[in-house]
Amino acid sequence: MNTVAETTIEADPKVPVIRTTRDFTATPEQLFRAHTDPELFAQWVGPDSTRTRVVEWDARPGGSWRFVSSHDGQEFAFRGCFHDVRPDRIVQTFTFEGQPDGVALETLRFEDLGDGRTRLHAQSLVDSFADRDAWLASGMETGVNEGYAKLDTMLADGSV
Amino acid sequence: MNTVAETTIEADPKVPVIRTTRDFTATPEQLFRAHTDPELFAQWVGPDSTRTRVVEWDARPGGSWRFVSSHDGQEFAFRGCFHDVRPDRIVQTFTFEGQPDGVALETLRFEDLGDGRTRLHAQSLVDSFADRDAWLASGMETGVNEGYAKLDTMLADGSV
Repeated sequence: MNTVAETTIEADPKVPVIRTTRDFTATPEQLFRAHTDPELFAQWVGPDSTRTRVVEWDARPGGSWRFVSSHDGQEFAFRGCFHDVRPDRIVQTFTFEGQPDGVALETLRFEDLGDGRTRLHAQSLVDSFADRDAWLASGMETGVNEGYAKLDTMLADGSV
Repeated sequence: MNTVAETTIEADPKVPVIRTTRDFTATPEQLFRAHTDPELFAQWVGPDSTRTRVVEWDARPGGSWRFVSSHDGQEFAFRGCFHDVRPDRIVQTFTFEGQPDGVALETLRFEDLGDGRTRLHAQSLVDSFADRDAWLASGMETGVNEGYAKLDTMLADGSV
């Protein structure tokens, strides 16, 4: 059986939140590692057309992170701090440096579905519906979907 | 003239945000110092009935903070990370450790009004209206008002 996993990306109607849900053939520990180990993270995050370089990474409560994605000679940098890093939950802030005043609060949860499957629940909270909807309209789904497909491959070949 | 400064605490009707506005006889630099120097901060934050001890404090982007407030022999701890620390703006996360899953994203802005006056704009964003309203109903105004009154005194006597 060869199922293609589907990513659900939803805009909450009541609060300025984007919720992303995605099932993986992985344990919660593997998903945690994929999100906290900078070498693994750099290999899967973002669209296929970009290359990511992790510049700063201290995955513990109060640590900071920064990575730079390159595409066609252009660089896009992202940064934030880790608020919580627990086996079942990561909370971090997120800023695209091209818009330095914009900040999202991101929460990742790893739900064990049993049988070696884990559901990732990602939530991104901002303080305005306009900013949330602009982010959704920016084509972020492509990066999310291509990133998770790369992570699927890494999980299948034993790199995570 | 002896004016008592008023604090405005507002619940946004559209997004789960609390907005607090307060004018101070202070420069933006002084308000920045009052919020980033741990010894100054511990002296004014919170209600009159509590004593605050800063346990961890690294006021730079990606640093962490933690303080413990004592009241009648009981201790209440709070923690978070600094996302941004700029002269005109501080962005940080905030968790009361008694409710470790709750996280607020806080933004402080210091607006120079001229003539040695500065307006503090504080925004606290959470992901649910119920949590926001519970926080508002908890009597947080007392702590906010008494804290800012202590800060007024410190500004007047030259401690900041």
